[in-house]
Amino acid sequence: MSQHINPALAATDAPPVMEARRWIEGASFPADRPLLNLSQAAPADPPPEPMLRAMAEIVLTDPAAHLYGPVLGLPELRDRVATDWSAAYGGDIHAGQVAITSGCNEAFAAAIATLAAKGDNVILPTPFYFNHKMWLDMEGIGTRLLETGSDLLPDPDEAAALIDPRTRAIVLVSPNNPGGVEYPAETLAAFRDLARARGLALIVDETYRDFDARDGAPHALFADPAWDDVLIQLYSFSKAYRLTGHRVGAILAAPSRLREVEKWLDTVTICPNGIGQRAALWGMENLRDWLAGERAEILARRAAMRAGFAGLSEWRLQGCGAYFAYVAHPFDAASDTVCRKLVDRAALLTLPGTMFGPRRDAGGSGRAEATLRIAFANADTDGIAMLFDRLREVTRSGL
Amino acid sequence: MSQHINPALAATDAPPVMEARRWIEGASFPADRPLLNLSQAAPADPPPEPMLRAMAEIVLTDPAAHLYGPVLGLPELRDRVATDWSAAYGGDIHAGQVAITSGCNEAFAAAIATLAAKGDNVILPTPFYFNHKMWLDMEGIGTRLLETGSDLLPDPDEAAALIDPRTRAIVLVSPNNPGGVEYPAETLAAFRDLARARGLALIVDETYRDFDARDGAPHALFADPAWDDVLIQLYSFSKAYRLTGHRVGAILAAPSRLREVEKWLDTVTICPNGIGQRAALWGMENLRDWLAGERAEILARRAAMRAGFAGLSEWRLQGCGAYFAYVAHPFDAASDTVCRKLVDRAALLTLPGTMFGPRRDAGGSGRAEATLRIAFANADTDGIAMLFDRLREVTRSGL
Repeated sequence: MSQHINPALAATDAPPVMEARRWIEGASFPADRPLLNLSQAAPADPPPEPMLRAMAEIVLTDPAAHLYGPVLGLPELRDRVATDWSAAYGGDIHAGQVAITSGCNEAFAAAIATLAAKGDNVILPTPFYFNHKMWLDMEGIGTRLLETGSDLLPDPDEAAALIDPRTRAIVLVSPNNPGGVEYPAETLAAFRDLARARGLALIVDETYRDFDARDGAPHALFADPAWDDVLIQLYSFSKAYRLTGHRVGAILAAPSRLREVEKWLDTVTICPNGIGQRAALWGMENLRDWLAGERAEILARRAAMRAGFAGLSEWRLQGCGAYFAYVAHPFDAASDTVCRKLVDRAALLTLPGTMFGPRRDAGGSGRAEATLRIAFANADTDGIAMLFDRLREVTRSGL
Repeated sequence: MSQHINPALAATDAPPVMEARRWIEGASFPADRPLLNLSQAAPADPPPEPMLRAMAEIVLTDPAAHLYGPVLGLPELRDRVATDWSAAYGGDIHAGQVAITSGCNEAFAAAIATLAAKGDNVILPTPFYFNHKMWLDMEGIGTRLLETGSDLLPDPDEAAALIDPRTRAIVLVSPNNPGGVEYPAETLAAFRDLARARGLALIVDETYRDFDARDGAPHALFADPAWDDVLIQLYSFSKAYRLTGHRVGAILAAPSRLREVEKWLDTVTICPNGIGQRAALWGMENLRDWLAGERAEILARRAAMRAGFAGLSEWRLQGCGAYFAYVAHPFDAASDTVCRKLVDRAALLTLPGTMFGPRRDAGGSGRAEATLRIAFANADTDGIAMLFDRLREVTRSGL
């Protein structure tokens, strides 16, 4: 007997990263040409040694780390985020505007829960971060897709034209996943003004903020004393401190909204985990210089990616930053076919544009079929050199 | 400006445990009569020393523990649950029927996501576990409340009368939170038969299974080779191994349903945290005897609670098991008033029945006002003696 399955869930795409893993299951790669996995936006190494020692010490000596904590997170971590953010963004942010979550995806889901229900809709630029789209699909919340230009930047005027009475929020990701592009401060300000004028929330996911190439504050949204009447910022500790396996993220929003977030988090995960939160706090307190080095390394890899594509004219780089290059391929095939063939022909695992936007037959512009995402953060200098050797070869020989 | 808030979330009750914490904020208690906090179902101590040492070792030596893992959990932990459950329940459960979650609340939310959407409904016996009710409320899923008898047991025939075409599941908790009652195997079998006959899922939350007073399997549901066409079992590692701060739970269900669960978990928390999962596995491998001692201690406390109420005839014990006593109070006031006054008058923090079921003016039977939950698991022998001293005094003197 086959039981009833919620149609909204059944119709939601499978997790792309899991799908991509299935492409390489059973495949074997010669020792002299190992698989180069550029599919997931995640550090490949554990946190640095001093942090590991600090975490082991917490495990052994802090009983509270093993017990339920406050739903909205460890007060010391909320305080620290408020203080550091106030300095970094030039604003006056207090701990009551910060909640800690079990990763940044949960931050998004909780934020959306406070805003929208089935039948409402949310504006999402394409290419989108697939988990955002999946969550909205599962909840029966409509997505109004905002096609971006050749620079991958969304246009506030075009967004304005998509708003209807059931629109509840505009969601931006900067630096962008999958596009790699860093949104200019003016773009974010224009979206903030639009959202405020139309009574919507502006959600800005800044998971990759620590790897922004620009010095200083990337935007002035927090400098507005009334920021929390419109802005909801999301953050992840996973990338900065290599804590992906520990699930720690954050939401910055109005205290009144966080009271609603508290209900949702209490019911889903009760509290963020104790070790991960204390590790994140330790990282903020002790790894500033180390993180600056991590950023410099990512920026060096970004430069290598730009240089590589500059020498490979058949491919067209549309965005490159944070952990990602977003690029148009030269083949006469849709991106999902291209990506599967790149596994076989070049031992490269990347994700197709079809995972980040609608296909042409679902109303897409054709960009989804034409592009793919390369998560380069895990590839060191040798890996990036290897990537371009393989891309050159397969570009010459064809798929 | 006040932004739009999703009405379903705004209408959902605040988390009861947080609400109860607010009752004691600012209150002071004399040194010779400290607050006895019997509000939350959680161990008060960290895991045992050997487990702490094992966790510290994992932190220092297992890089994978710090990185993203599979969405459905660590394969070794899924395997171990399948093996231990097969032995404990007398069934043939395989790892593909097990998913690991970020705590048991998330297991419930994910299970419900596969079954129901806004406009559907789910049957919940009262008194209910409040986070179950909150999740359904937030999702716009109706609850059809099934009043239980004086023994706190739900009746399958009464449940049958509540089913309509939009009913998707029946949710049972055994041993019960808040009621403390252990459902007889025949009751569970009758609900399974009803659910199967009507094409519903039967969700059984067995968070407290490790503290069941009965020896052997508490039910024969898994002995049915076709169990996974109807049953979804939920479990928590938090209570058995004192891992509340680590957020590790489980869902046992059909592989086809777990593929849908995978989408939901990927989008909400990506994967359960690496340290917590490895600690749970270590606990299953190494703490069997220790856990037997924990259970014996809980059963001794349960016996002390029964004896205490047997000598306090003004109070009527309706259920007592797992971590909880559920009891009718003797006062001429509603339970929420009684619980607040017990803080002031007796330095006792308990949760009122109004947090576990509808008030009379919302269609309740009056039980919610008449009862309260005492989470006795954290009270040692002295604490339980103190509880009854205070209850006797306040019963004699009045509130």
